[in-house]
Amino acid sequence: MSDPRDVIAVKRDGGRLAPDELRDFVLGYARGEIPDYQAAAWLMAAYVHGLDEGETLALTRAMVDSGTTLSLDGISRPTVDKHSTGGVSDGVTLVFAPIAAAMGMAVAKLSGRGLGHTGGTLDKLESIPGLRTDLDPETFERQVEEVGSAVAAQTADIVPADGALYALRDATATVPSLSLIAASVMSKKLAVGTDLILLDVKAGSGAFMKTPEDATELAVACTTLAREWGRPTRAAVTDMSQPLGEAIGNALDVVEAIRLLRGDIRDRLRDAAVMFAGEAASRLLGASMGQGRANAATAIDSGEALEAFRRMIEAQGGDPHVVDDPEKVLPAAPVVRPIAAERSGTISAIDAEALGRASGDLGAGRRKKGDPIDPAVGIVFLPDVGDAIEAGQEIGTVHARTDDDAEHALGAVHDALTLTDGPVEPPPLVYGWHG
Amino acid sequence: MSDPRDVIAVKRDGGRLAPDELRDFVLGYARGEIPDYQAAAWLMAAYVHGLDEGETLALTRAMVDSGTTLSLDGISRPTVDKHSTGGVSDGVTLVFAPIAAAMGMAVAKLSGRGLGHTGGTLDKLESIPGLRTDLDPETFERQVEEVGSAVAAQTADIVPADGALYALRDATATVPSLSLIAASVMSKKLAVGTDLILLDVKAGSGAFMKTPEDATELAVACTTLAREWGRPTRAAVTDMSQPLGEAIGNALDVVEAIRLLRGDIRDRLRDAAVMFAGEAASRLLGASMGQGRANAATAIDSGEALEAFRRMIEAQGGDPHVVDDPEKVLPAAPVVRPIAAERSGTISAIDAEALGRASGDLGAGRRKKGDPIDPAVGIVFLPDVGDAIEAGQEIGTVHARTDDDAEHALGAVHDALTLTDGPVEPPPLVYGWHG
Repeated sequence: MSDPRDVIAVKRDGGRLAPDELRDFVLGYARGEIPDYQAAAWLMAAYVHGLDEGETLALTRAMVDSGTTLSLDGISRPTVDKHSTGGVSDGVTLVFAPIAAAMGMAVAKLSGRGLGHTGGTLDKLESIPGLRTDLDPETFERQVEEVGSAVAAQTADIVPADGALYALRDATATVPSLSLIAASVMSKKLAVGTDLILLDVKAGSGAFMKTPEDATELAVACTTLAREWGRPTRAAVTDMSQPLGEAIGNALDVVEAIRLLRGDIRDRLRDAAVMFAGEAASRLLGASMGQGRANAATAIDSGEALEAFRRMIEAQGGDPHVVDDPEKVLPAAPVVRPIAAERSGTISAIDAEALGRASGDLGAGRRKKGDPIDPAVGIVFLPDVGDAIEAGQEIGTVHARTDDDAEHALGAVHDALTLTDGPVEPPPLVYGWHG
Repeated sequence: MSDPRDVIAVKRDGGRLAPDELRDFVLGYARGEIPDYQAAAWLMAAYVHGLDEGETLALTRAMVDSGTTLSLDGISRPTVDKHSTGGVSDGVTLVFAPIAAAMGMAVAKLSGRGLGHTGGTLDKLESIPGLRTDLDPETFERQVEEVGSAVAAQTADIVPADGALYALRDATATVPSLSLIAASVMSKKLAVGTDLILLDVKAGSGAFMKTPEDATELAVACTTLAREWGRPTRAAVTDMSQPLGEAIGNALDVVEAIRLLRGDIRDRLRDAAVMFAGEAASRLLGASMGQGRANAATAIDSGEALEAFRRMIEAQGGDPHVVDDPEKVLPAAPVVRPIAAERSGTISAIDAEALGRASGDLGAGRRKKGDPIDPAVGIVFLPDVGDAIEAGQEIGTVHARTDDDAEHALGAVHDALTLTDGPVEPPPLVYGWHG
């Protein structure tokens, strides 16, 4: 291997690294042969000067090759993975997986435990008593084949270089780099051999990317990377200027998912899940886009998606009765307080990040790696931007551990709302598809 | 202290750090509270975006304040420090110190043990049997007062942040940054309270800065920094396109210094030493520049400078008889081979760096910190650019540990020479003064 300083110097001067140089550097770091401080200097140089498409591909390949991969070769159904860049009340995966399974596809999703205002998909599922997400590769693949969906924790031997580099980026102020984000997101998806990758790139106050333009750049970077790799990938840029669904928590999101799969909720979250399932069907099952979406809606309305969810929960050791009586099976918070509108008006803006933070303050998220999550707490927030509300109207509930926590959350929810008198145009659900 | 990531992010985005932010970051690093990887990311950001004058000053202040300083308040004579950025056959300090001492000034020099093709001033002096450079601050100051000159090793408690940052820069390809170099050079000078700082910024094939333009930029950066600090500093940009003196080694340089102080050598090295001593006299003793130089020449020709050298050597425990019979007292190499010109012509270029490397290969320098140095070996190379030489003429000697080493060095010396037929204009000694 060449002197790591030469690799750093090329990027320092804005040059382009050959794929092998970059690969040796990243794998050397993953093996512990290149120290953190050299990787940190390289990351800052890469941040400032950017990586071109070839470099981003080489970085991603090296990260994938730093660990093991899952080929999914033994799966007879067409397989799909779905990943969201993260937002507030973003429970799409919880409902997408059983809908797609009910439609004849197989959803194979490995998920990390990110930091966030609320837990991720893993944490939400784990609020179901008995449910395990630590599936070994054989169990995971068998469940995908037999049940049609599995959501498991990404193990340390999948893309280990990404974990190490991400921690270093977090410590060195080099996280918000388009190329580095794209490589990080895609390496974890490309390490699992699904037939299709669906990305949901969120844009807005509740997302990492605050504008549709920034989110589009990331979506394009990810789909370009996937195309160069040779993996079919479609990315939607979707709105996160307000919470997507109603629930901002963990068990609360499972309740919402079950109600949606029963057909009791017809909102933006359902629209998003149907859109992604329709997209998958059009790519994997040869359906037209319209037919794919219709089939997804039918999977819900027929109850087949709910049964697919029950089978997935049961396969992962969870109590299957949760789909029949979620409130009885799932943990509940001791303090539940209604949120009453303080005045009348039309909602012109919802600070989604503030709602997420309020839920995090209740205990629904983790601030640092390894923090415990309180599955029962969170916020249910019902109206959307554009809805007219009346003073005193119940617009949601706060689920808290203590009265003090609840009071604090109620104040935060009120502060997160902007009301106006005139009519308000609601934001779109999706800004566009890429890839 | 603010989150180190915020400090890194400001520089990452090309912003300007407030003096206190930068100070806290550097002192936090020096105390071990900020890890190498965060400092490395900051260094790369500072390398790419540069530091402005205020930031460079704040960085330098923090590095000085990371350790102890020497006030020199008790010295009755006007004090001067002289520092060279380093070159091949750069023995100016060895002769400048006794000349200045003989003229009534006091030279107080703390020196680091850098890496180089040959040893530094400390290593050259230590080739004198018995001579010590590990003087404690009290001994150092007393010698400066009583003898008029002292050259001692910089201790670890002087500017410790510079040592740590330099090692990190070396490992992260962030050495060649003007602001970082200026801060590193000047912090060590500003930590010692002399009345005048003289800098010799070398330019050419044998120096770090390859062109007079680059060297001038560094000279201006250093003198600007000193002016903002409030310390009189003058910097000369001098030629290093060929070796300055004859000796490229350690003991060989001491021999040359003694011969020069005896008045036996009248070359560019003498001219440089007289120029710096004249500059110091004009700044510290109120002499005109011409009178200062004349007094410096008189200090040599009267033998007073040689006696000042003897006193300094004796004060530091070295054998004072070295000034009477240097070849007898100093270690000698077992193999001494004449260098005979291979063909006739006028020297149009000398690859000073190649000569330095050849001397380093003989054992005169160190490749990494802590390597031992062979004081006896090295190269004496007599002609200058512009000199006409005859085939077979002895143009120097190689001093080696083995015959093989000597053969190798002879080949390297021949390869380092470019001959031509016409007349050649020699390069100037000095390109200009700054500050």
